[in-house]
Amino acid sequence: MTVSKPAVDAGKPSRTARKEAGEASGESAALQMGELSELFGYWLKRAQLKIFEDFLRCVAPLQLTPAQFSVLLLLDKNPGRNQTEIANTLGILRPNFVAMLDGLESRDLCTRLRSANDRRSHILVLTDKGRAVLARAKKLVATKHEGRLNDLLGAANRVALLSMLAKIAREF
Amino acid sequence: MTVSKPAVDAGKPSRTARKEAGEASGESAALQMGELSELFGYWLKRAQLKIFEDFLRCVAPLQLTPAQFSVLLLLDKNPGRNQTEIANTLGILRPNFVAMLDGLESRDLCTRLRSANDRRSHILVLTDKGRAVLARAKKLVATKHEGRLNDLLGAANRVALLSMLAKIAREF
Repeated sequence: MTVSKPAVDAGKPSRTARKEAGEASGESAALQMGELSELFGYWLKRAQLKIFEDFLRCVAPLQLTPAQFSVLLLLDKNPGRNQTEIANTLGILRPNFVAMLDGLESRDLCTRLRSANDRRSHILVLTDKGRAVLARAKKLVATKHEGRLNDLLGAANRVALLSMLAKIAREF
Repeated sequence: MTVSKPAVDAGKPSRTARKEAGEASGESAALQMGELSELFGYWLKRAQLKIFEDFLRCVAPLQLTPAQFSVLLLLDKNPGRNQTEIANTLGILRPNFVAMLDGLESRDLCTRLRSANDRRSHILVLTDKGRAVLARAKKLVATKHEGRLNDLLGAANRVALLSMLAKIAREF
């Protein structure tokens, strides 16, 4: 590893860490994390799973996944764009995206229309119901999900973290 | 959203962002990201996918996934612990973990032994080959993968980011 040991292991183990160790070992001691405590991808994945779990909990009344929410947000801002543009912008593979659209369309949240310019291409638009569900989801995400994350990290740290993650996503 | 707009969208779009927009729309303009540019989980997932892709590329000669690497690291630090302890510590579901161990064992990287204390339980140990592969993987990860990430973010930012991700993973 190229950097010195971060503060990840320092101090009292968190409630979650203690719970995990307890579940893992019964009466035996917690495992030594060793270099795993410095492995960036490991903590990134664990954090991502936590964030997605919480997101699903927060928008449970609307039954939306994080990916579905992203699609609705993008359709709202970009009406009339085609399927390929939306899928590519979100980095979703075509077969997965088609399956996701099938789900959204069956719930009457969006519609696929044949493009007037290119008959092979599908234009995507939100329905009125889709817009209403998106508005409710945005409120739940802002107040419950992002709000709690803000409380945990502090607003300034949250912004700094988001900016670094976007830098990795775009430039790494 | 509860925080002000971060610097994610500011400045010149990165090479990757421009490439994506180009691929997405042919001659048409890039899509408006809108609130998606402030959605924490979105950038976390995109960053995680990038990091995992790069990890796989860096350790391609050894054919190890990030999850397999984590298991080898943990077995090395905690010889003789049982399957449940390792799986729970890593947050891997039992069926997935059993399939992963089948793969590692078939490549002679680790072995499952019946526990002397509890015949229903399996003790996990690295083989000599497993230790050798782990040592090579650690070098590749440190020099190519984490090294490049350090170059992108700077060492101090990388440590701060890791610490915040671990906080989310443990406390959110």
